[in-house]
Amino acid sequence: MAPLATKADLLAELRGVLGPAGCLQGADMPARNRTDWSFLPPADPLAVLRPASTSEVVAILRHCHAQGIQVTPQGGMTGLCGGARPLDGGVALSLERMSGVEAIDPHGMTMTVLAGTPLETIQKAAAEQGLFFPLDLGARGSCTIGGNIATNAGGNRVIRYGMTRDLVLGLEVVLPDGTVLPMLNKMIKNNAGYDLKQLFIGAEGTLGVVTRAVLRLYPQPGCTSAALCVARDYDAVLAVLAAARQRLGPLLSAFEVMWSDYWLQATTRVPGVRAPVEIAGGSHAILIEMQGLDHVIDGARFESLLEDLMEKDLVQDGAVAQSLGDIGAFWATRDAAAEFAHPTVIGPHISFDVGLPVSQMDAFAARAKAALADQIGCQSVYYGHVGDGNLHVVAWRPGADPQPLPEASRIVYGIIGEMKGTVSAEHGIGTLKKPYLPLSRGPAEMDLMRHMKAALDPQDLMNPTKIFDGSP
Amino acid sequence: MAPLATKADLLAELRGVLGPAGCLQGADMPARNRTDWSFLPPADPLAVLRPASTSEVVAILRHCHAQGIQVTPQGGMTGLCGGARPLDGGVALSLERMSGVEAIDPHGMTMTVLAGTPLETIQKAAAEQGLFFPLDLGARGSCTIGGNIATNAGGNRVIRYGMTRDLVLGLEVVLPDGTVLPMLNKMIKNNAGYDLKQLFIGAEGTLGVVTRAVLRLYPQPGCTSAALCVARDYDAVLAVLAAARQRLGPLLSAFEVMWSDYWLQATTRVPGVRAPVEIAGGSHAILIEMQGLDHVIDGARFESLLEDLMEKDLVQDGAVAQSLGDIGAFWATRDAAAEFAHPTVIGPHISFDVGLPVSQMDAFAARAKAALADQIGCQSVYYGHVGDGNLHVVAWRPGADPQPLPEASRIVYGIIGEMKGTVSAEHGIGTLKKPYLPLSRGPAEMDLMRHMKAALDPQDLMNPTKIFDGSP
Repeated sequence: MAPLATKADLLAELRGVLGPAGCLQGADMPARNRTDWSFLPPADPLAVLRPASTSEVVAILRHCHAQGIQVTPQGGMTGLCGGARPLDGGVALSLERMSGVEAIDPHGMTMTVLAGTPLETIQKAAAEQGLFFPLDLGARGSCTIGGNIATNAGGNRVIRYGMTRDLVLGLEVVLPDGTVLPMLNKMIKNNAGYDLKQLFIGAEGTLGVVTRAVLRLYPQPGCTSAALCVARDYDAVLAVLAAARQRLGPLLSAFEVMWSDYWLQATTRVPGVRAPVEIAGGSHAILIEMQGLDHVIDGARFESLLEDLMEKDLVQDGAVAQSLGDIGAFWATRDAAAEFAHPTVIGPHISFDVGLPVSQMDAFAARAKAALADQIGCQSVYYGHVGDGNLHVVAWRPGADPQPLPEASRIVYGIIGEMKGTVSAEHGIGTLKKPYLPLSRGPAEMDLMRHMKAALDPQDLMNPTKIFDGSP
Repeated sequence: MAPLATKADLLAELRGVLGPAGCLQGADMPARNRTDWSFLPPADPLAVLRPASTSEVVAILRHCHAQGIQVTPQGGMTGLCGGARPLDGGVALSLERMSGVEAIDPHGMTMTVLAGTPLETIQKAAAEQGLFFPLDLGARGSCTIGGNIATNAGGNRVIRYGMTRDLVLGLEVVLPDGTVLPMLNKMIKNNAGYDLKQLFIGAEGTLGVVTRAVLRLYPQPGCTSAALCVARDYDAVLAVLAAARQRLGPLLSAFEVMWSDYWLQATTRVPGVRAPVEIAGGSHAILIEMQGLDHVIDGARFESLLEDLMEKDLVQDGAVAQSLGDIGAFWATRDAAAEFAHPTVIGPHISFDVGLPVSQMDAFAARAKAALADQIGCQSVYYGHVGDGNLHVVAWRPGADPQPLPEASRIVYGIIGEMKGTVSAEHGIGTLKKPYLPLSRGPAEMDLMRHMKAALDPQDLMNPTKIFDGSP
């Protein structure tokens, strides 16, 4: 690496191109650009660059490519694994000034946006046209679509609409050497050569910078129904899932499961969260959501599903939301996870995002719970988007400071590896999960990832050290 | 290239590994392995290799890699662009003996299959478990899932279930050097590093050989409804599409449009095809299909949509299918395209598969029709999966033999290029569309495709000369 003084000189040219608002250094660098939501300590980049156009992104990447400066692209900085945390001595390339909806095609059901546009802005712009952009996650007000694309964000409605990858029709991307790929396809069907945009979705900014996207829109749901119910055991959970899929088909928009310990040790302790059902005697609470087309027709269909589940004794207790307020209250039992840090709930804890075939989730939860307790004295609770094969684990050793992160990680990811699950269902790898990636991906896959990286970024300047280290 | 006699010697070792049924040469090579459905003349490969396992595929690719022999992977040979036609002096690697369903997970809704399994076998295996594999195309009895994956096949229900890419969760792939990538992921959500399987979907066998796949299954539809109706003009077609999307949401499973000339000059002339509606006074016939959950609830919903469309004068004439026989008859008007070669219908003709944003399709059809008539004396008719942005064009110069393929291609693809459409919506590029690919993909995209190919297949042995020629 060049000495810092030299590197600072190297930025002078860029300052000329980007102007003072586009090139922040020293004390002017905002704290938010130094790390993400991973709790990793702030980094010390050379500068925070804030281009206002694709041509400014090109200028930055050409310059950094010529001068050998490392670049970390940044969106809303809400990632949980350190993917957007810049490198000491590198530059942060924030897309925050490239924000805005450029076009909506109501017939083609597409929206063209700049990469720095916040997710919530996109949701609202779609709604104003009577349309719907289905990607949704807790960070919607802060995260940007560019970050969603770079991490292939998931969220609550994947069971119906898929991951971010499934919602992207086209991308404009700038390669590490400054080459622009104007792949702003607007068609659902397009088999004209390699679908190159797939390379950049979920690559966590290691292969290029996403600057624009064409997104797929859907019709606004005509109505929403939700139910909370309690199942006796995991076999009953699977039977309820099968019934919900069969009876609601593609209207099923969420199937969230909370293991009883989560409900008892977490949900019911969060201030302000109501528990509309009693879990006593049951093993799992289930939140079922349907986005229907018409309240009269589909609302009745939803209630009839719940009645059948009760009648067949598949659920022990159940409640159907009677209002939007009820729906919010039902989701609050699931979203209580956001309040776990509160000292009266769980306090300091460790969170995991893993994936498994749905049939193995309960076995995993039992194994992980026992191993965490026996081996390192940790309690743990389990919940997740079970319909999508995505489980979240919250573990904590009461009173410990710091919490035993490496030890708990080895246990949880070790079991995941043995059960052929994924160490990251929706949060990505970043730096935090890097040591565990080989538990889910074999040596040939790791080699090919490094080979692809070397082919697109031979100098290893584009968000290096993320996902994996080193060359093939 | 080595002389043929030497190359034949090079195969002796493989014959030992694969056995006599696995290595066919000379007169033993079946005609079907020499070309596909593109009407390109039969090729003269060195041998047709038919491995029975992934390890035999590995042996073949290692051997060919070491000896510099070109390899063309083959599925059901039903492609229309020459992608699976072998190279003179290379080998054809047919997956036909690697056929069979290996596992079905009813909770995870996945099926694991060998790449040579026919699509229809997969559809039936899903149905036997009360599940549904939604990919469907005319060649279902002959095409294989490996070929569907290599070409990212589309078909009739893309508007609801997506392309083949959207139905693939995991792949086992053998790289050109014989390395196996065991990426048999079964989870909907998996963000553990680069999603490498995407590289091989739609790459037409140029980057590796798909040997196994994990497919996504869906619930069986509870009922199907269909309607044929006639719209006054293309604005009315767009209004009907918007209404169908809003009222049927994700239950809408097909939206096919036939321009009036298609209907009058083609559909109504095919022997045995009934015309349930009168197109007189209208400009387009529309086939709307809904896969519902329950006949009573959703059948009524479908009829009410049609009544509203009539009442609002968006459609001039309309018929709702009253039986499975009716649904088949309605689809027969659309599938009449398969009979165009019949001398009483159109006779010799040229077919195109292109894509455009839905709002521009009618303008394209008018422009192409005029240009084909004025410039080369061709008649033409238009129809397609309009809900997906996919249009088919059939053009012919009455009495001409041969038909003016290059001239018509230049006109049709030239207009597509100007209107920023795609020269291939679902058929791929192969060799036939290779000259026109740069009309849809810019120089930077073409360069990156070649660069990717060189990175994965530096000797250019894996189905070379397909999609594009040469090195970066």
